[in-house]
Amino acid sequence: MNDKNAAIGVFDSGVGGLTVAREIIRQLPEESITYFGDTARVPYGSKSKDTIIRYSRQIIRFLKTKNVKAIVVACNTASAFALDTIEKEIDIPIIGVVKPGAKSAVESTKNKRIGIIGTEGTIKSELYTQYIHSIDPEITVVGKACPLFVPLVEEGMLHDSVTDEVASRYLESMKEENIDSLILGCTHYPLLRSTVGKIMGPEVNLVNPAYETAISLDGLLRQNGIRADKDAKPEYEFYVSDAEEKFKEFANSIMPLHIEKINQINIEEY
Amino acid sequence: MNDKNAAIGVFDSGVGGLTVAREIIRQLPEESITYFGDTARVPYGSKSKDTIIRYSRQIIRFLKTKNVKAIVVACNTASAFALDTIEKEIDIPIIGVVKPGAKSAVESTKNKRIGIIGTEGTIKSELYTQYIHSIDPEITVVGKACPLFVPLVEEGMLHDSVTDEVASRYLESMKEENIDSLILGCTHYPLLRSTVGKIMGPEVNLVNPAYETAISLDGLLRQNGIRADKDAKPEYEFYVSDAEEKFKEFANSIMPLHIEKINQINIEEY
Repeated sequence: MNDKNAAIGVFDSGVGGLTVAREIIRQLPEESITYFGDTARVPYGSKSKDTIIRYSRQIIRFLKTKNVKAIVVACNTASAFALDTIEKEIDIPIIGVVKPGAKSAVESTKNKRIGIIGTEGTIKSELYTQYIHSIDPEITVVGKACPLFVPLVEEGMLHDSVTDEVASRYLESMKEENIDSLILGCTHYPLLRSTVGKIMGPEVNLVNPAYETAISLDGLLRQNGIRADKDAKPEYEFYVSDAEEKFKEFANSIMPLHIEKINQINIEEY
Repeated sequence: MNDKNAAIGVFDSGVGGLTVAREIIRQLPEESITYFGDTARVPYGSKSKDTIIRYSRQIIRFLKTKNVKAIVVACNTASAFALDTIEKEIDIPIIGVVKPGAKSAVESTKNKRIGIIGTEGTIKSELYTQYIHSIDPEITVVGKACPLFVPLVEEGMLHDSVTDEVASRYLESMKEENIDSLILGCTHYPLLRSTVGKIMGPEVNLVNPAYETAISLDGLLRQNGIRADKDAKPEYEFYVSDAEEKFKEFANSIMPLHIEKINQINIEEY
């Protein structure tokens, strides 16, 4: 039996998953979080399914040494490629960002035309499409990979004419598809929300799966009777697989708390 | 004693080192090559020294199972971070791209002002500067990291207005430095030669370390008495740590030979 005041393990290929951790902190402020960012092997988006499954298994083995009570796969690529496999191998509740994101998009579309942008891996997996169709097979789903978005975000070019131009090109075909709902299918992309919103226009609803993931997580924890006590004092721990400085700087620029200590580990040992 | 007709092991974080392999094939056509691209863990440029040393050791252990007679570190970041350490641990000749590139730039500068562009890791290491100063301490070296160049090349945007704009910004400060020689200090960058050349102008000599590395390799092999026979029939083998399809496509677009077979291995086992 898991301790209900134990931390939730949250992992991503790097810093992107912090947008999910941020949403969990906002919605479930009494929950503790143990975050792992695989900064030594980032990015996941262009890597193969087998590699992503192997990496996810190592990370889960690591998070379990920290006695987490549940796991959030805060990476769309890992959710798309590895969740089906690893949820069969694990004895604690686990949730990804794809299902909640897909559900939210289905609820928001009126004309039954949904767009999804993400990494090459996420788009090629077509997992968002599969989930959306399992809820409503009549919905048309249009996907587009945007491989330069992650490096542009990591360069801090959130409001920049180059990013505008790259986004315009990536989204050009999407604009012609008459979608009314667009899933930001990579955890870095909420940081480009204003750029994407400007191009797509106010009639297109932008879906951030992080928001819906935190809601689903709440339900999953309650269902398993492991929601933290209302007066629990949350603790946040951060681990990375590469040097901590760069992660720290980025994390402190987007998180609602000041992060002092980041721990570097060798993930290949797990 | 090594077999002189054994292959030369060449490694890089991914596809970039193919520009070095290409130059070795051109200059030393009788030499066999066993290439390893660490496509599961690319890019190296933003990772720390310790991580790059660990990765380089694994790759060398792998290449030695293939009985290579010598090793070329065809990656500027690994040359900058790991070569000093690993050359003490190895019993076959090893060469990086930094020293030959630095030497070539020193020979080409007339006004003793050299520029160097590369990944964050290469520029921060200041290893090019150290080598240049060990030859001529009076030379001024100006470095600039260009983190978006690798993703732009991997997106195939070699001749593109976005790449032009990004390059213009990265090189703006460099243009004011009155350099007459610019080292393309990342193995991806020779693929952006025309973009960089257009911005820097014809008065700036662009140094491609791959060219000088192949010359130095020739000398190193002769010195060790392990240059392949003139009539040797060269063999080329390619290994990667992630799925082979993408690597294959890129490799065949820039290499002077058709590559049919690419082998995927799990580098973490070495």
